[in-house]
Amino acid sequence: MKLLRYGPSGEERPGLLDGEGRVRDLSAIVPDISGKALSQSGLEALRRLDPATLPLVADPVRLGPCVAGVGNFIAVGLNYADHARESGLPIPDEPVLFNKAASSIAGPDDPIPVPPGSTKLDWEVEIAIVIGETAYDIPESAAPTVIAGYCICHDVSERAFQNERGGQWTKGKSAPGFGPLGPWLVTPDELGDVQNLAMWLDVNGARMQTGSTATMIFPLHFLVSYVSRFMRLLPGDVITTGTPPGVGMGHRPPRYLKPGDRVELGIDGLGAQRQQVIGHG
Amino acid sequence: MKLLRYGPSGEERPGLLDGEGRVRDLSAIVPDISGKALSQSGLEALRRLDPATLPLVADPVRLGPCVAGVGNFIAVGLNYADHARESGLPIPDEPVLFNKAASSIAGPDDPIPVPPGSTKLDWEVEIAIVIGETAYDIPESAAPTVIAGYCICHDVSERAFQNERGGQWTKGKSAPGFGPLGPWLVTPDELGDVQNLAMWLDVNGARMQTGSTATMIFPLHFLVSYVSRFMRLLPGDVITTGTPPGVGMGHRPPRYLKPGDRVELGIDGLGAQRQQVIGHG
Repeated sequence: MKLLRYGPSGEERPGLLDGEGRVRDLSAIVPDISGKALSQSGLEALRRLDPATLPLVADPVRLGPCVAGVGNFIAVGLNYADHARESGLPIPDEPVLFNKAASSIAGPDDPIPVPPGSTKLDWEVEIAIVIGETAYDIPESAAPTVIAGYCICHDVSERAFQNERGGQWTKGKSAPGFGPLGPWLVTPDELGDVQNLAMWLDVNGARMQTGSTATMIFPLHFLVSYVSRFMRLLPGDVITTGTPPGVGMGHRPPRYLKPGDRVELGIDGLGAQRQQVIGHG
Repeated sequence: MKLLRYGPSGEERPGLLDGEGRVRDLSAIVPDISGKALSQSGLEALRRLDPATLPLVADPVRLGPCVAGVGNFIAVGLNYADHARESGLPIPDEPVLFNKAASSIAGPDDPIPVPPGSTKLDWEVEIAIVIGETAYDIPESAAPTVIAGYCICHDVSERAFQNERGGQWTKGKSAPGFGPLGPWLVTPDELGDVQNLAMWLDVNGARMQTGSTATMIFPLHFLVSYVSRFMRLLPGDVITTGTPPGVGMGHRPPRYLKPGDRVELGIDGLGAQRQQVIGHG
């Protein structure tokens, strides 16, 4: 299944993408793509629906973030060996974890405002895990039972805020618009081998990042288990899992985003996002 | 006003403490101590109530975390010069920010489970700011208009997870029970000078931390403005603002918590918390 949320920001309704790529409304079935709807039984109930019986939503429609009620928005740093190298940092012995503010979450095609004082706005295509069940200190073998699905996360980053402002990364990862999620929350059964998905990101039509989930240092199921050793994961929590090489900071000289730039990014089976960088309100 | 939440974990109801120190029920007035109830107008509506007209809640009652719907749970590191010194770290030029998982939030007297694998469980008495209005990039002078009130936060910390596992602190700040909030959310008008409140923390009856909000490096209103430069703050967000000297890590040799230990902590005007450390379930 490809679950989604559509409508104006803050008023999104739940939906799904049918076999013909059309949006079908789920508001009569679930209150939102959140909480219990993300549990194994909640997803199974949605899977039993015949999409043809659901109201068709007229195009064009804005897509919101594909999951609501995100409590913990966790990110993994340096999870691709080549990206660690371009960042000038050693390959970690275990995952590096940090947080993005939940208030950074945006729709997949929403504009990205340059935050006030920003000079080093950068991009990162990532695959994110959406948690469907409560999980604390679980083994890797149990990870599939708590994963609702996957989506694209653009882990938008301000490198000066991240790296030059005290050592903790959250300042550079949390501005409004820094967490586009979607277009869809794709359930694992639709994806085939989730550790073999191609990833890409373009800026103004030029390819900047090319990668694959096959080259992750710490794979997705391991990451769920690992994060669950340090905090209780709840339905709707998001773990975004690091980016392959090609970020702006890694260019010589570095190449950062400015108002007017267009970013497009995609992952096999998870769709694509398209954002325009805009000035600060 | 002293607002609170009472009842079993996960089923808390909103309440307030009346002039005689008794709990009065607010469930007929607001759905919870969260969201709109925390706005300036929401608080003003509660202030107009006569507590004597509200249902009295029979003692004894468990208190839950004093605020619900916490999105961003932000923490400030090294905000007391003496604590920075005992941690062996330089006094920062600007606030160090990190995140605690929202799922670490607990009631003020709930037990603190030792997380699996923990060897360096430590304490930190802190004053936390509860945000009442949306705020992004606001000046320090506007901070009072977005602050709903203050509460005690015990910023429970696992030092090995925090300092020996990759450099980002969130791993050591996020386990279940690591964020007791309360007993009360106290509105600023009740507190007098919030930058002159005594703070203390005892372990098994022995005084470990003694401090005052008077010795903060970065004061509370500044911190709200500062955090708002990096992320959008929302009603119910919590900013806990650092701890004075006397943490276990600062002892020679270090002194960490173990099952059976009792921790009590308090701040003038904000009440006190009492927790027992327990083994990992």
